[in-house]
Amino acid sequence: MDFTIKNALIATKDEYSTTDVHLVNENIAAISPQLEVVGTVINGENKLLLPGFVNAHTHSSEMWQRGITSMYPLELWLTELYDFTPLDCEKVYLSALGTAVETLLSGGTSVVDHLVLIPGQELETISSAVRAYKEVGIRAFVAPLIQDVSLSAGIPSGDKQQTHEPYFRSTEATLELIEEAVRLFHKPEEGISILVAPTGMQLCSDALFKGCIELSEKYNLCRHSHLLETRAQEKLSQEQYGCTAVEHLKHIGYLDYRTSLAHCVHLTDSDIAILAETKSTVVHNPLSNLRLGSGIAPILKYRQAGVNVTFGCDGSSSNDSQDLLEAIKIGSILHNVTDVDYRHWITPRESVTMASLGGARGLNMADKLGSLDVGKKADLVLYDLKNLSLLPRTDPIGLLVLGRPINVVDSVWVNGKQIVADGKVTTIDVDKLREELFNQSQWYTKRQSESVKAVETHYRYVMGI
Amino acid sequence: MDFTIKNALIATKDEYSTTDVHLVNENIAAISPQLEVVGTVINGENKLLLPGFVNAHTHSSEMWQRGITSMYPLELWLTELYDFTPLDCEKVYLSALGTAVETLLSGGTSVVDHLVLIPGQELETISSAVRAYKEVGIRAFVAPLIQDVSLSAGIPSGDKQQTHEPYFRSTEATLELIEEAVRLFHKPEEGISILVAPTGMQLCSDALFKGCIELSEKYNLCRHSHLLETRAQEKLSQEQYGCTAVEHLKHIGYLDYRTSLAHCVHLTDSDIAILAETKSTVVHNPLSNLRLGSGIAPILKYRQAGVNVTFGCDGSSSNDSQDLLEAIKIGSILHNVTDVDYRHWITPRESVTMASLGGARGLNMADKLGSLDVGKKADLVLYDLKNLSLLPRTDPIGLLVLGRPINVVDSVWVNGKQIVADGKVTTIDVDKLREELFNQSQWYTKRQSESVKAVETHYRYVMGI
Repeated sequence: MDFTIKNALIATKDEYSTTDVHLVNENIAAISPQLEVVGTVINGENKLLLPGFVNAHTHSSEMWQRGITSMYPLELWLTELYDFTPLDCEKVYLSALGTAVETLLSGGTSVVDHLVLIPGQELETISSAVRAYKEVGIRAFVAPLIQDVSLSAGIPSGDKQQTHEPYFRSTEATLELIEEAVRLFHKPEEGISILVAPTGMQLCSDALFKGCIELSEKYNLCRHSHLLETRAQEKLSQEQYGCTAVEHLKHIGYLDYRTSLAHCVHLTDSDIAILAETKSTVVHNPLSNLRLGSGIAPILKYRQAGVNVTFGCDGSSSNDSQDLLEAIKIGSILHNVTDVDYRHWITPRESVTMASLGGARGLNMADKLGSLDVGKKADLVLYDLKNLSLLPRTDPIGLLVLGRPINVVDSVWVNGKQIVADGKVTTIDVDKLREELFNQSQWYTKRQSESVKAVETHYRYVMGI
Repeated sequence: MDFTIKNALIATKDEYSTTDVHLVNENIAAISPQLEVVGTVINGENKLLLPGFVNAHTHSSEMWQRGITSMYPLELWLTELYDFTPLDCEKVYLSALGTAVETLLSGGTSVVDHLVLIPGQELETISSAVRAYKEVGIRAFVAPLIQDVSLSAGIPSGDKQQTHEPYFRSTEATLELIEEAVRLFHKPEEGISILVAPTGMQLCSDALFKGCIELSEKYNLCRHSHLLETRAQEKLSQEQYGCTAVEHLKHIGYLDYRTSLAHCVHLTDSDIAILAETKSTVVHNPLSNLRLGSGIAPILKYRQAGVNVTFGCDGSSSNDSQDLLEAIKIGSILHNVTDVDYRHWITPRESVTMASLGGARGLNMADKLGSLDVGKKADLVLYDLKNLSLLPRTDPIGLLVLGRPINVVDSVWVNGKQIVADGKVTTIDVDKLREELFNQSQWYTKRQSESVKAVETHYRYVMGI
């Protein structure tokens, strides 16, 4: 189905203009005032049309534990999280639906789901998330989260001898699993891509990284990973490699233009130069970096070094939401406290570019996505500028990025298909989803993680707390 | 009109219980399961009842410039802001309505409006804001913003000789104006209180502070002020007083249990001890402190020192919203990056207490407001826990504080009067407000502040940029 968006406000170089836009098949076919009508007419009056943003790092099934996970740093938080992770593919499906809906209604048209796999039901887990994303119609980049070392190994040893349970699945079996997932689900032209996604150096062997590099080369897959999210990981890199994790990942060849790296909080200046040189992308997850006390990523330095930066919500147990506009706002203004020269601060227009084109770049799709250009895929969002939270009228992009927009997404198209209209997702029954999420959960406030008890003393010791 | 809220979830010491609540006249009359019905029945099922929060520092008329003010530090930002401030009481009225609506719909039942006065129309400005707050029915603390030194004096001199225009109104005339405002508008029993509110040491003489202290004593008024928001103000204190601003304010007697101080970013440990000793309240405005690059206030230190802390949105040109839940979330998680010991981090329940009882304390109303106790004023908020943004069910307060709640406020009572029902403000026509805000504004993106040009070179020099 084709569309003609009439009289929408679009951003020009440093102003706005009112124009019409043709969406034909999957693409933006024309942008010009007073186009002839083709297909369905959309009234764009008093609405702002922007390229869709990318929610460039999340873990959808964390939605089941949002609001409840203790105020802990990553290593303990993750330990608690894993103790209570639902082992149920139906729940994975529902939380992927929820993640997609919240992403769409906050301006995102793509989501990168670093998906936690249920042991023994790995392909079913992926299948459940893929089914949800296809039903909603969001463009999805499913990055099955893999590791080959047990969770407790993610805490540095310090001067203590530590032993860890062996991981339950071999590196080889894990790589076979990912290759099978690629064969089954990697269909970029249908809006579903599989990424190789070792969780991070803290829990993955070189063999796992290298196997992922091979799969990436063989199937032209993008690469994803957590990187240096915490001080503990910084210590661990030195313990494991005797160098920084960035130096090591460069050395083994993991970093390239298809690689996106979540967090990147604790990098040295020479690490930053490596990211620039390898054209890697930093996915900034400001809210989880605050919630977990990980730190403030040196985003202004990245930008000055020419490193591509985009935004993610991160999983909704560490945020605890999937509101991409919130992540963009905080991920933009947070850095003003890190540099007294305000001429380096991120402007709202720059934030929009980071969230759209920056996201597309990190997924090796900058030629197809991320800007309002004729010939690109029609992944677009139309915002209602008459919404109270965007009034009085001033600078539409300033209001969108620096304000707290509520219910401002009027329409969304992904690959030319309209999946949000009049502020409602049209592809699934969101009220039914709400009922399911409600029925399959309980209000509960007290839970104790036995695993946290087992590691907390060592964690505090080694981190000097 | 009386109310019986049936089967609402309320927070107990560290759990929840389901109960009924009687609101009789202006007060919470009973809290107990299975109360007999009096007055109107409100279905509290699957809803969370909390005491209303206080938006403890804002400047309502900044709403006219939200989204547009440049990415500048406070001193330059304020210079630009003043160049474009609307000088129109009708606009003041509308932005006070907007501020009240956004505050209510994000859990606030009280607002402290550090109100910028239109020169020559000072009482009319106050009257316009008071009219708006009375119409909406929010509890309002109007703090007319006064100064007796010109704006440019707020930038430190450094080693340069600086001259500043004399302020257009005498200190004495300003104090008379405030006293007249007290006589006309200070009616706490009707929900409108006037505060004395010199803008801050950077723009106010000792005579102005002392006059405000006298008025505070004479009429039992609360005291408000900005305090040490920026590094520039820290420098300026030393230039002006040869000591910190806190030491000076203590010396002249401004600090007491009725004093609330916005920002408090750049305080020494001994300053913090003074705030604790004088029982002053810190109003934390995390979003504007980030947006303006002011810094991260040492909130965990305040809490450890026993200083009362509550939250404000600050004016919506420096935020750029009046979403109190956003300010509470960011004002809570931001500090996790300032202390590696997670046992000091603020929990969601602590955030709720800070936002409600902490706010009441700062306004010398802790005996009447800020908690769900029989005998206190019925300033209450009922949240819809079946809202998608609060699902799946986990810990309701965790979801509310750490999530990104959208449209979750179901009902609000202020002084026993219901002013929000089914998520809608019932006292004013919000659609009409939207139309007015739309019609009285323009989309514009380019504006140049001549005043910024005049001071920027000196600002950069003196701040070492």
